[in-house]
Amino acid sequence: MERRLELFPDTAQIVAGDDGRTALTIGGCNLAALAAAYGTPLYLFDEATLDARVQAYRDALAAHYPAEAAITLAGKALLLKASAQWAARRGLWLDCTGAGELAIAAAADFPGERLLVHGVNKSDEDLHASLESAAVIVVDNLTELQRLLAMATAGDTPLPALWLRVRPGVAVDTHAFRQTGQSDSKFGMDPSEVRSALALCSAAGQTVEGVHFHQGSHFHNVQPIAPGLETVLKLIAQIHAETGWAPQVLSPGGGWGVPYHEDDLPHPSIEDYVRFVAEALVAGCAARALPLPRLQLEPGRSIVAQAGVALYRVGAIKQSGARRWLLLDGGLADNPRPALYSARYSALPVLEPTRAAVGAASLAGPYCESGDVLIHDLPLPAIAEGELLAVPVSGAYHLNMASNYNGARRPAVLWLRSGHAQLVQRRETVDDLLRRDMGLDA
Amino acid sequence: MERRLELFPDTAQIVAGDDGRTALTIGGCNLAALAAAYGTPLYLFDEATLDARVQAYRDALAAHYPAEAAITLAGKALLLKASAQWAARRGLWLDCTGAGELAIAAAADFPGERLLVHGVNKSDEDLHASLESAAVIVVDNLTELQRLLAMATAGDTPLPALWLRVRPGVAVDTHAFRQTGQSDSKFGMDPSEVRSALALCSAAGQTVEGVHFHQGSHFHNVQPIAPGLETVLKLIAQIHAETGWAPQVLSPGGGWGVPYHEDDLPHPSIEDYVRFVAEALVAGCAARALPLPRLQLEPGRSIVAQAGVALYRVGAIKQSGARRWLLLDGGLADNPRPALYSARYSALPVLEPTRAAVGAASLAGPYCESGDVLIHDLPLPAIAEGELLAVPVSGAYHLNMASNYNGARRPAVLWLRSGHAQLVQRRETVDDLLRRDMGLDA
Repeated sequence: MERRLELFPDTAQIVAGDDGRTALTIGGCNLAALAAAYGTPLYLFDEATLDARVQAYRDALAAHYPAEAAITLAGKALLLKASAQWAARRGLWLDCTGAGELAIAAAADFPGERLLVHGVNKSDEDLHASLESAAVIVVDNLTELQRLLAMATAGDTPLPALWLRVRPGVAVDTHAFRQTGQSDSKFGMDPSEVRSALALCSAAGQTVEGVHFHQGSHFHNVQPIAPGLETVLKLIAQIHAETGWAPQVLSPGGGWGVPYHEDDLPHPSIEDYVRFVAEALVAGCAARALPLPRLQLEPGRSIVAQAGVALYRVGAIKQSGARRWLLLDGGLADNPRPALYSARYSALPVLEPTRAAVGAASLAGPYCESGDVLIHDLPLPAIAEGELLAVPVSGAYHLNMASNYNGARRPAVLWLRSGHAQLVQRRETVDDLLRRDMGLDA
Repeated sequence: MERRLELFPDTAQIVAGDDGRTALTIGGCNLAALAAAYGTPLYLFDEATLDARVQAYRDALAAHYPAEAAITLAGKALLLKASAQWAARRGLWLDCTGAGELAIAAAADFPGERLLVHGVNKSDEDLHASLESAAVIVVDNLTELQRLLAMATAGDTPLPALWLRVRPGVAVDTHAFRQTGQSDSKFGMDPSEVRSALALCSAAGQTVEGVHFHQGSHFHNVQPIAPGLETVLKLIAQIHAETGWAPQVLSPGGGWGVPYHEDDLPHPSIEDYVRFVAEALVAGCAARALPLPRLQLEPGRSIVAQAGVALYRVGAIKQSGARRWLLLDGGLADNPRPALYSARYSALPVLEPTRAAVGAASLAGPYCESGDVLIHDLPLPAIAEGELLAVPVSGAYHLNMASNYNGARRPAVLWLRSGHAQLVQRRETVDDLLRRDMGLDA
């Protein structure tokens, strides 16, 4: 139980109240008061934690990479108008998958020169939106490149600089759904396709500025990065020797993991990860006499996950056979990760969070689905109906994957800074559920 | 390939066009024309198939159950305003989980006396919405019952008739996420809790009309229903002997499966399922001298799944190692079932669907997630970029579980009848994505 607090945002504290009871606070905010004001389930983001994670990346890059570097926030992990505004103000880049995410970036006035566009199957709408935003397009495949070059010719407008996505043939050790680098992955181009892409661009007078690869998401062991990076550098060195071209930017993607449960602690640090990548890149370029490119990392989860907390209220409590069920007002609809990836979460009660555990409890949502179990068998104290439970590490891949299953309305989102909470995304309403329905003619 | 057509709606046909090429039609509608008019991904529901499945249930109940019977459409499988209107016109009941689904039912003017409300953790909002709709509440647990009885006392208004949800301790053979009847399930009450609930209701002068149990979803073997039903009837007989009370309605839930892939064919029929349940109930009641209750079945998937078709357009095509990838414009965001349940789907090209397969292909969506693969290794002919693929059995648990992952906008939905297609749910827009965002103060 003691280590569980480490999973929460950096500003989490256990504070004694006037009534002598202790309570969990985040960003100086009283969680019970927020739940009373905004209802539950409620998502909270702590700006201080977001800032600290970005600083950890910046410090590690400054310490270990002797050339230019940049950090892209992976929009697929979290993309609110608010998070895009925050990223813009912090000088981060933002990666978007397609026209939907680009529209959110545009609403946040995100500068186009720091936007990246990813996607294995970009639609015409996606490509037009990318060009309109003047974003950097990370070309996934030759078909896409040919369409882009044709659009440039037809529109008589030059394309912005392109990057190419390489499939290195080496994945990291993670859940199969999160591996992206293996040789039969749907992502990117193999070496011969990369050569063809460069030749097509060269013939069209089109600049290729960057090379991107990504081996998977939520990994904890840096070692598989080395053979992936070596594969890519070997290809670049060959092309450099043949054509003189080398990328100005190299992005080994993102995907660094986070601890979700106290059993995942201690977790290797952001600095460990960045140092490994930076040193491998410096050594790999030196060995091949390649100029050092700009190193562009694309973390999502390791910046936003721990800054987010989900707050639920316990409704019914039930003993079923040997199992103690705490039934919450949210679950699968706002966080499908336990069902999708068998993700293992933890939780603390908001009031008197340091009470000793009396045994295991399972936390389930209100939905008519047995997969709607957020946490199996977590040691917890006696919990009363109506208590608030806070689930840490809820900042990545929850809100963006949320659904309206069973008529659930997606939660409100608060942004916490300097002791103040701002509503940045309102709770969904039944009117929202019906907004697209025109119904059936008689 | 030949059997694949059997997975499609009953009205599916392969029709020769003026150009000599064959094409797949559904409900008399040309799928290529619908895709051109409404875009892709596009969901289609064939009313004739919906009607036929309801008729199959009605015929089987009439043939095999000698007392009153009723059919409830399980809203969690599919709930559009249009599907609720259709169900209302057909005289079906509708089950809703909470206030969100009740609001959709209300928008469809669904009669309250045929509404059921399920849920393991109904909120105050859910219970108030249920009372406002005059719906039948299926009480999941004693806490909920006590809250309901207190609301009736406080409001000085009698409650509508209640049902009680029993946990039979016997699940069906299906994916663990879809099992609901086992002894440590989060759903329902054990026998001693059922007795307490009846005593509480009796003391409060509250009528209990029905008993509900449900053993799981998407099962194909009827056998485990027998021990589940026996457990429930044994309990009812004991209570009947002690108190004289017996339920007027007995609902053994729903959950009958469907074939998703040609390898699932032939699939046992709706009649097989209904006959087994009806005969077991008649025999079980006769053995215990219990009056025959109204038999209320709650199918969802087996009514709506096969009536639904998802239509995608192939974008990029890619050979990665030994794998042929067809990259579609939809996937995980509109159909998370392959990722959640390892569900195995099939597909046919819309044009010249009977072309011979040339080898396996994998169908993936455009999202930055390796779990975004709709179908692994399906034998298919050579497919060109821009072709339309139709995925059958897409009517249940797709649209209700859909998300905005990667900025995806949820698809448009057409209702097909008498050769005419009506838009019943419009495609989501980028404005919809941003509707709840207020952004961050400076």
